[in-house]
Amino acid sequence: MVNSGANSRRYQPEDLAAVCDALASQFGPRFSAGQALRDQHASTLTWLPAQAPDAVVFPENEGEVADIVRLCARHGVPIIPYGTGTGLEGHVNAPEGGISVDTSRMNAIVAVHAEDLDAVVQPGVTRKQLNDYLRDQGLFFPIDPGADASLGGMAATRASGTNAVRYGTMKDNVLSLRAVLANGEIISTASRAKKSSAGYDLTRLLVGSEGTLGVITEVTLRLHGIPEAISAGVCPFGSEKAACDAVIATIQSGLAVARIELLDTLMVKAANAYSGLGLPETPMLFLEFHGSDAGVAEQAERFGEIAAEFGGGPFTWATKPEERTKLWAARHNAYWAVKSMWQGAEIVATDVCVPLSRLAECVAQTRLDIDATGLIAPIVGHVGDGNFHVQPMIDMSDPSEIAACEGFLERLVERALAMEGTCTGEHGVGQGKRKYLKAEHGAPALAAMQAIKRALDPAGIMNPGKIFPD
Amino acid sequence: MVNSGANSRRYQPEDLAAVCDALASQFGPRFSAGQALRDQHASTLTWLPAQAPDAVVFPENEGEVADIVRLCARHGVPIIPYGTGTGLEGHVNAPEGGISVDTSRMNAIVAVHAEDLDAVVQPGVTRKQLNDYLRDQGLFFPIDPGADASLGGMAATRASGTNAVRYGTMKDNVLSLRAVLANGEIISTASRAKKSSAGYDLTRLLVGSEGTLGVITEVTLRLHGIPEAISAGVCPFGSEKAACDAVIATIQSGLAVARIELLDTLMVKAANAYSGLGLPETPMLFLEFHGSDAGVAEQAERFGEIAAEFGGGPFTWATKPEERTKLWAARHNAYWAVKSMWQGAEIVATDVCVPLSRLAECVAQTRLDIDATGLIAPIVGHVGDGNFHVQPMIDMSDPSEIAACEGFLERLVERALAMEGTCTGEHGVGQGKRKYLKAEHGAPALAAMQAIKRALDPAGIMNPGKIFPD
Repeated sequence: MVNSGANSRRYQPEDLAAVCDALASQFGPRFSAGQALRDQHASTLTWLPAQAPDAVVFPENEGEVADIVRLCARHGVPIIPYGTGTGLEGHVNAPEGGISVDTSRMNAIVAVHAEDLDAVVQPGVTRKQLNDYLRDQGLFFPIDPGADASLGGMAATRASGTNAVRYGTMKDNVLSLRAVLANGEIISTASRAKKSSAGYDLTRLLVGSEGTLGVITEVTLRLHGIPEAISAGVCPFGSEKAACDAVIATIQSGLAVARIELLDTLMVKAANAYSGLGLPETPMLFLEFHGSDAGVAEQAERFGEIAAEFGGGPFTWATKPEERTKLWAARHNAYWAVKSMWQGAEIVATDVCVPLSRLAECVAQTRLDIDATGLIAPIVGHVGDGNFHVQPMIDMSDPSEIAACEGFLERLVERALAMEGTCTGEHGVGQGKRKYLKAEHGAPALAAMQAIKRALDPAGIMNPGKIFPD
Repeated sequence: MVNSGANSRRYQPEDLAAVCDALASQFGPRFSAGQALRDQHASTLTWLPAQAPDAVVFPENEGEVADIVRLCARHGVPIIPYGTGTGLEGHVNAPEGGISVDTSRMNAIVAVHAEDLDAVVQPGVTRKQLNDYLRDQGLFFPIDPGADASLGGMAATRASGTNAVRYGTMKDNVLSLRAVLANGEIISTASRAKKSSAGYDLTRLLVGSEGTLGVITEVTLRLHGIPEAISAGVCPFGSEKAACDAVIATIQSGLAVARIELLDTLMVKAANAYSGLGLPETPMLFLEFHGSDAGVAEQAERFGEIAAEFGGGPFTWATKPEERTKLWAARHNAYWAVKSMWQGAEIVATDVCVPLSRLAECVAQTRLDIDATGLIAPIVGHVGDGNFHVQPMIDMSDPSEIAACEGFLERLVERALAMEGTCTGEHGVGQGKRKYLKAEHGAPALAAMQAIKRALDPAGIMNPGKIFPD
């Protein structure tokens, strides 16, 4: 696709040349301005047009990141932090050109403090890499976006996933960060103490800042003990509304579900086809409970009673670990399942989140809208948090289909905001959601965010064109 | 005590006069520059000298707060937000003079969304007021600093308390805030959605900002269901170290204790005398478990086994609700118990927090230091978080005692920082901890905080003289 950013560069060609020369000299084969690599670093899982950076550099430590940032700052050349490129809102695009800082070689697990339930990792470590490493110690890190994303990228986008209903999001599971700011200074945001009231919460300011305030160079994460017992299961419902109502009742009852995920009929069909699940093709909740053997059994029984009240069931429990793994792999592969079912079409990612009490209503109205608009658009969601994704499948060569989808997206976000919700529960703003930020936060709060951005990055070199509307 | 701030005022007397005239005219009897009221608003529970504001105003709604801020901003007169004045680090002192904005009349519970487990409150609502209101609905708000503080003040100082080990701190339990910034604009930091990735986390930036970025005018809080079963108990140990080791083992085992509090021998004596507990005078853990009947029993049994491994026990369980209430009232009255035991002496508040693995070592070294320094200094702590308070009792008329205490405080903080901890787990920085902020965060992170402060409050009118070193 077109690099539409070429026209919006604010720096001179000689500045870019100076930066590239210096990086080539310092990084040798770990620097490249080759077209294939550039294109690969603009490839995001989204319908947004790709906008390649001018070059890509692969630092191996924090000092090198600081060198890159200082060099770019001196020449006014943008920096685009890159983890795994699995962001869904164009986070790694380079609308103003610049240098993609690929952290994939910063993939060391620096320390695991099992006794403190925390781990220190470099930003390129992926969530699966960390969990593979932790398993023998009986620990895990719960945040699981669909992709095997890097932990630096997950922190930058305030990611969550299926476990957030029980374990929170990245906001709740990052204890501390190290980052290189736009001025080239390296900061550490907090100690390893479990709580602190010592000054502004720079940790939470950087979590979700999408690379616009600094490049994350180290993440200290909160870990959790692998529960003594885990049980997972699926529960069919007669309608999406019945499933959502059961979710609402479950959460309100105080039942500490570890996962409670909605798949609509279309998504169940796609998952059956892609992952061979063999499920009845009706709206379905996927669930998981964590606890002691007795606790898990008690929770399952209570959920069964709640589901029955809303006409749901029967439960099918995945008693063996491999069955459970298959179930959640299918859930995580939802994106690919949908993609493979409608080959040639592009998925448009959506990500609204509303207060739980409005969930059933929001999903029901959205279903009517999907049908009225004539879209093919499966629904899947972390419904325990009030967060769901509609995934319209669009033929990008058909302008009328694109227009219809755009109208639907606008209405979806307006609906969520009108219900005291947000335009993005976990994907982040990136490029795709910038236009909604003012409606969601209001002009004064947006102005406060922009004042912070200007204070920490006055030249605007950190991942420009993201979060803030033009 | 002396208002030592009179010399550091940066505004002209006529500016102050103009502000006072305008406030008197708008607020009538809800404004006063009377000495008694001013002194009362500088009275903090600390050894820091009181520094009274020039006047006190009692707004009743957000619009009035915005009026006050705009007026003060126009004249460069400082604003000191005031909740209940129970802060421990001089947060409500007025070292540069200015107007104390007392939010006690903004004490309405705006909405309780039981189905979403959240409540919207004005900043002057206190934690006990909210919990009294919620009880009939089977809900509660867990954060419990010792005092019956205002929820606005608790948000501003990132407060926590005995329940934080299970329910987190204010950072984890504030969903959204409304605030008046220094420019007089009113912001809302987030929607009521349980999670969001839409831009910078202004909520967490304001939580813990201690009134230096804005006046909090509304707080949306996360609520929790009152557990089906609650059991509390006390468990004696042979030494503080044995108690701390038992705490570490308990948390590491994944046991979800709701409260786990250490009282050293001196504190147990004070609590016996003040609250009539009749406990054996030895280091003691106070505990509470939340869950189902079966879950609570299971947890209690597991804790009993762990305690026994460290020579602790026997347990005494408070089976009746009134016994449990008495126990926690005694814990919350620790400050007053100590105060009444050594009448005439002043308590110096301390508040370090270290990674759990370092807790036993930190407490043990601190005990040696207390003894070597010859201080009377009980220890009490939210030890499940690695957070503990030493409360030296000082005769403020004795310079050598003050000097000895100051040396001890320096060493205590240095010890905590050397163990990757923080100088304040929950009290905040205020005036008292400013000198430690650079050592804890490093110059670049402190500079980033100051850049944010300047961006949002360029004239420095919001609670000056707090958080940042001179």
